[in-house]
Amino acid sequence: MDPGRRIETALELAVSSAEAPGAPPLLAEAIRYAVFPGGHRIRPRLCLAVARACGDDDPDAADAAAAAIELLHCASLVHDDLPCFDDAALRRGKPSVHVAYGPALAVLTGDALIVAAFEALARGAARRPARLAGLVGLIARAAGAPHGIVAGQAWESEAHVALSDYQQAKTGALFAAATVAGAAAAGARPLPWRLLGECLGEAYQVADDLRDVACRQEEIGKPAGRDVTLGRPNAAALLGLPGALARLERLSAEAVAVIPDCPGAEALRGEIEAQTRLFLPASLRADAA
Amino acid sequence: MDPGRRIETALELAVSSAEAPGAPPLLAEAIRYAVFPGGHRIRPRLCLAVARACGDDDPDAADAAAAAIELLHCASLVHDDLPCFDDAALRRGKPSVHVAYGPALAVLTGDALIVAAFEALARGAARRPARLAGLVGLIARAAGAPHGIVAGQAWESEAHVALSDYQQAKTGALFAAATVAGAAAAGARPLPWRLLGECLGEAYQVADDLRDVACRQEEIGKPAGRDVTLGRPNAAALLGLPGALARLERLSAEAVAVIPDCPGAEALRGEIEAQTRLFLPASLRADAA
Repeated sequence: MDPGRRIETALELAVSSAEAPGAPPLLAEAIRYAVFPGGHRIRPRLCLAVARACGDDDPDAADAAAAAIELLHCASLVHDDLPCFDDAALRRGKPSVHVAYGPALAVLTGDALIVAAFEALARGAARRPARLAGLVGLIARAAGAPHGIVAGQAWESEAHVALSDYQQAKTGALFAAATVAGAAAAGARPLPWRLLGECLGEAYQVADDLRDVACRQEEIGKPAGRDVTLGRPNAAALLGLPGALARLERLSAEAVAVIPDCPGAEALRGEIEAQTRLFLPASLRADAA
Repeated sequence: MDPGRRIETALELAVSSAEAPGAPPLLAEAIRYAVFPGGHRIRPRLCLAVARACGDDDPDAADAAAAAIELLHCASLVHDDLPCFDDAALRRGKPSVHVAYGPALAVLTGDALIVAAFEALARGAARRPARLAGLVGLIARAAGAPHGIVAGQAWESEAHVALSDYQQAKTGALFAAATVAGAAAAGARPLPWRLLGECLGEAYQVADDLRDVACRQEEIGKPAGRDVTLGRPNAAALLGLPGALARLERLSAEAVAVIPDCPGAEALRGEIEAQTRLFLPASLRADAA
């Protein structure tokens, strides 16, 4: 099965289990709405790519890790869009969950997705219990406090924040989880894979900043220009468009360079190159070329 | 170590790991505020009591299960108190988290506590990975959709709800998790322990309804009379005070009767009797006697 298919199948399994008979219908509907249709599924693709490079000897565990990471990402989008944070009306080209279902169900949808992530892990890695403890720990660290995506969002409530702490937690943590969990799911040592995830997380953050500054809403499926409106730091605003594009290119090259030795390193390098090109929408890729 | 001490120690471990250097200070503070000082810690006490009755051959796993259940309970209190749900200003005798830290940090505190629950499990049950998968699955089911506490809260957003579905998910699920996870942490078969948890969850719900109707705010540490204000079903309002007290007594007796055969059954019966007496504050216990 190709990676895209594996990811959607694993997410479908998680979402349909939350919809089992007896579920509150609106919550079940909102959970599905938050997960499908997805964006580029960049993080779970990265997770599966690393698992494959490491031999992928337990595809169920790798699929579960990939799904868990995407479910946590979806949860963070639902909560970050709430009125008490970004108050974003649009996400992935449709009304955000709190607009479609109200803030109460949006809070609960995010909560249910966080729980579903760990439930997916327990189900998918059950045949390799020795790997499960590592996977739950790695993925929990990327999600919670002190350094995960929840902590990243919490930095926005602080008067003073180091930009690198903020971005590392808000974006880098889940990319790093994608690479280390991909390795751990395949029985490889996770630590050497962290740097690849961190490079890619930083590259993705620069690309996201570029999209926010230089794209129209229709192209990115959410309002553009939000960072300036919300007073958030933005690499494209700080470095200028050409400076930010150059930085993105450097980070993408660095990511390819830090891939650890493994059976599938060569194929992975090609895949990472292809994926980082997709970080930018078509209009900006032309500028970068 | 006595159970109360074990629970506070396990919770302290989870909370202090969320406060590690590099954590956003306000989030770290709000997490501690949400967990300490606690209430009666009824659910984790129940979890440890069942683990002990089953031999408690891995206290670290039992402590982790107890802490995970209490962290999820604290998360649900923080989120349920939010303005988009109960808009409760007071909890455990002090301002609720959203009043003390604002709604944004309250959402993130709940999120971080959910993640911390699974992280605690992974850490505590790491030496018995074969038990970990079961524990994560059992506890996730009690927390998320379709039948966990998140689903229970989501029933409040539905136009039609069966009272038993609502109460079973909102209260019963986490009590049932306490008994099945206590058994699973000690290597016993979890399923026979579910009924005990369900009985106790129902008894606790009746007691909570009694407190809401018959006590003053100072005694219960949160506003009284909320069920009528919020139009929520309440057993004491439905059955009258004497009817609800009789029902509580029946459920408590049933709980003691359904304790499965196990090495520590006799001691557990005594403990359950003592705990259910604590479900009611002193003023109502006098009425019941």
